[in-house]
Amino acid sequence: MPQRRTVDDDSVVYAFSPDLEPAVTVAPGDALTVETRDSLEGEVQRDEDRIESVPEEVNAATGPIGVEGAARGDALSVAIEEVRLAEDRARAVTIPGFGLLQDDPDVEAPFTRVTPIEDGELRVGDTTIPLDPCIGTIGVATAEEEYSTLVPHDHGGNLDTTVIRAGATVYFPVFQPGGLLAMGDCKAAMADGEHCGTGAEVATEIDLTLDVVADAPLARPLVETTEAWTFLASAEDLETACELAVRDACEALAREHNTSFTDAYVLSSLVADLEISQVVDPLKTVRCAVPKAALENPLA
Amino acid sequence: MPQRRTVDDDSVVYAFSPDLEPAVTVAPGDALTVETRDSLEGEVQRDEDRIESVPEEVNAATGPIGVEGAARGDALSVAIEEVRLAEDRARAVTIPGFGLLQDDPDVEAPFTRVTPIEDGELRVGDTTIPLDPCIGTIGVATAEEEYSTLVPHDHGGNLDTTVIRAGATVYFPVFQPGGLLAMGDCKAAMADGEHCGTGAEVATEIDLTLDVVADAPLARPLVETTEAWTFLASAEDLETACELAVRDACEALAREHNTSFTDAYVLSSLVADLEISQVVDPLKTVRCAVPKAALENPLA
Repeated sequence: MPQRRTVDDDSVVYAFSPDLEPAVTVAPGDALTVETRDSLEGEVQRDEDRIESVPEEVNAATGPIGVEGAARGDALSVAIEEVRLAEDRARAVTIPGFGLLQDDPDVEAPFTRVTPIEDGELRVGDTTIPLDPCIGTIGVATAEEEYSTLVPHDHGGNLDTTVIRAGATVYFPVFQPGGLLAMGDCKAAMADGEHCGTGAEVATEIDLTLDVVADAPLARPLVETTEAWTFLASAEDLETACELAVRDACEALAREHNTSFTDAYVLSSLVADLEISQVVDPLKTVRCAVPKAALENPLA
Repeated sequence: MPQRRTVDDDSVVYAFSPDLEPAVTVAPGDALTVETRDSLEGEVQRDEDRIESVPEEVNAATGPIGVEGAARGDALSVAIEEVRLAEDRARAVTIPGFGLLQDDPDVEAPFTRVTPIEDGELRVGDTTIPLDPCIGTIGVATAEEEYSTLVPHDHGGNLDTTVIRAGATVYFPVFQPGGLLAMGDCKAAMADGEHCGTGAEVATEIDLTLDVVADAPLARPLVETTEAWTFLASAEDLETACELAVRDACEALAREHNTSFTDAYVLSSLVADLEISQVVDPLKTVRCAVPKAALENPLA
């Protein structure tokens, strides 16, 4: 068994671009622990600490991590084993000009709620909610454009997707040699939607194993869980994101079942749930979850 | 225990309007069995039966059912006990100019797949999927406008929402005396999204009990399940529907927790999942599901 290796949070990026340089390089199968800063870089420790505008640099993503042998046209797999909280508090905030209800006169912004972590739960005012950590920003070097870590797209990035949690494996298209993975912006808990613009933002340590799937037909990030293959897509509006995610799911169904695209489309309408990841980043992310009973392996 | 009463599917409506006349009138607490036609009214029995355009009359809704004592400002509750399939087959179709991928050159329309119901499962080509019946169209007389049964809005209508199934209680605002409930368009199975424009359309018998909640602050349909209170909203685009559903959820959270709207907004961003009901009707329907651990009773 290979030794576990730590990637500390001294090396971070604030953008995913084609020309990322690896901070570390690992071999497929290496066990890693990745430290991540909270998305607001420690600026918010009390309710009085408010964020007046979206910071120029936000969602620091630890990495980039190069993976030996990962080549264009492959997929990079990230098996997430554990997301451990590295603090005794998280924080959720509103920021002027950001969030689903940013134009609502009843919403105060900036506004902060620090959410203490006590006895394995998160306290939000008079309510306690279960911890359910997920990784908000995770992605690879892009094909051509540069995207800040505030934005999601085909390379991943600020996907803010609750199913990217311990137990899931996330697959990314490899656009550049080595893949060049970076991640951060974890949440102690977050609802699908991320309505106010944040979850409960928190620093973490993530245990994971990277691997390479050769010649994998993948346009966008894909998540594997015990139950489903989930196709992610991000776009300017939710409708376009839905079209992309459903189209990717139907192509995989048609290929595996050896049917027409239309047959796959009809099947998807009965089994493949469209779900919301986030509606605020400001591109929106949705997902189409195909149960494994209907789709064995879209990477085959 | 009151006797169970059957509302047969001879009396149907194809629009929800302010001036519906009751086909039957029942007392609160009466146990009812409501028969529903399939949404395509038996026109599709074989793969060769295709639907060339969206029918003028579609989603026949059995009723209207008046409820004694239901007055404007109340809520009408519909406790769904069982949705039994009344056929040995369902059907899913594409129709020209309808559905999420209607402009995709790879989608054939019209196109039909009859899906046999065998041994408690649904067969879709080479795939079998579990039966999970839901009610597609369910609503009450409107406040002012008339909506065809193809369209969802604040009165309910073509909500195509998978959580409207056995075990759920659905609450509607009462806009007209008696409420005037009608329902149909059931599915043997459907994915969140209803991508191709239909689920597995099927005739059913629905066991339910109606009741009246006096002076209930409700703008739009609300679903109660064991786990959650789910706020539904329909609009031209998904973003607007998300804003409405999240706003309704936050108002209920602020009222019950006696906090500011902003505090409720931040809490909702951590616990209240935004979910997709359907993206095709052609107004879109989303829902915001607040766990009962965070929200005891929004109708109090």
